[in-house]
Amino acid sequence: MRSAAEAAPSFLYLPLLAGAGTGQSLKLELDEARYVAKVVRAREGERLTATDGAGLVATLVVESSRPEVVLRIDALEHWPPPAPRHLLCGAPEGERGDWLVEKLAELGVTHFQPVDTDRVSWPDHLRQDRWARLAVAALRQSRSAWMMRLAEPQELAVALLEGLPESRWLADPDGVAPGELPEPAVAAVTGAVGPSSGFSGAELKLLATHGFVLVKLAHTRLRTETAALALASHWAARR
Amino acid sequence: MRSAAEAAPSFLYLPLLAGAGTGQSLKLELDEARYVAKVVRAREGERLTATDGAGLVATLVVESSRPEVVLRIDALEHWPPPAPRHLLCGAPEGERGDWLVEKLAELGVTHFQPVDTDRVSWPDHLRQDRWARLAVAALRQSRSAWMMRLAEPQELAVALLEGLPESRWLADPDGVAPGELPEPAVAAVTGAVGPSSGFSGAELKLLATHGFVLVKLAHTRLRTETAALALASHWAARR
Repeated sequence: MRSAAEAAPSFLYLPLLAGAGTGQSLKLELDEARYVAKVVRAREGERLTATDGAGLVATLVVESSRPEVVLRIDALEHWPPPAPRHLLCGAPEGERGDWLVEKLAELGVTHFQPVDTDRVSWPDHLRQDRWARLAVAALRQSRSAWMMRLAEPQELAVALLEGLPESRWLADPDGVAPGELPEPAVAAVTGAVGPSSGFSGAELKLLATHGFVLVKLAHTRLRTETAALALASHWAARR
Repeated sequence: MRSAAEAAPSFLYLPLLAGAGTGQSLKLELDEARYVAKVVRAREGERLTATDGAGLVATLVVESSRPEVVLRIDALEHWPPPAPRHLLCGAPEGERGDWLVEKLAELGVTHFQPVDTDRVSWPDHLRQDRWARLAVAALRQSRSAWMMRLAEPQELAVALLEGLPESRWLADPDGVAPGELPEPAVAAVTGAVGPSSGFSGAELKLLATHGFVLVKLAHTRLRTETAALALASHWAARR
């Protein structure tokens, strides 16, 4: 018996879809070809679904699987972008950023902005390549047509100058429960989560002047990455 | 400047508190002594807070920190148990069980029950020792007086025969949003999350006969551990 996961149709990430047209054949490059041949084990004549990670979704037919993987585009459609969900996040302890990125992408955060803060900065050796791979895996897993954007770390004050969605949540034990806040999904939302040692007093003031309201995610203290994930979970369950 | 995390008073896990009385002095054993000396760096005369993980919370004074760590119990109180929150969880892929345990404990799940299912079982080499350490770390982090209970894996059908809280949620893409369900915290709650390949049809029927209602946690497919964590996040934010 095939399990549900095995039986689910494959969903590929193919950046080279961008700019392609229906009927066109695409020869896959190294990583993608390997994924289709070894993981998906696609056979000639089989149909696959793929996205460019920027809203384009294609139905493809496998024209050949060896020696090269060639797919023909059978149909193309555009999926509308999701409501923007930006997360500004201080550095967690250790290597916890890796799975944080994976989980945020899976839960539908659209923009991940690591922020350097008064007390803690993200490490210089940020594993952006690894993070990009985790975001791709989450895209496939969640069958989403939109890739989470991974920004380079910025100072909090600088990150706040960008055009962030107006509904703004700051994870804080003194806040109100998420259920008491207005539905943010349609109107888009920004979240802020402090680093392992918390935002400084000056940073908390700055966030307040930028319209962030305090949201209480639990009745106990949460680690940075746990708070970020809980925030994203509340957004994910909304329409 | 000390960061907020450094400045926060230490919260210890001391199982030997159980049965002890005010005024009594406790000589710490190896692991705990090392934690107090090396991590907390407690000095003579300093005050600490500790729990036995079963509701007892003590204020202690460091009588000596070398060669042995001896603490005197200054005050003892009992914290009431939290509302029971049971999670029955199928096996995720790979090593994802480790951080799942950490995060569930942080978010206040009280009972973690790994369930073996028609399609997937938990591995035989379950790292119960490692899980117990992660639960202790989460207890300290969240300053909780109640340790999450870690059960041995059981068949789903067997786990359902135990006295589980009557409000029952099954993570499922076809369900209703958590905000549309009654508040579970006071009445206690049970959650069920399928393994990486999902519950079988027979298991879904069994869960329905046991009163589980379908709860939609996101508009995309979530991995097992992500769904479990999202479920716990919704519970954590409620009173």
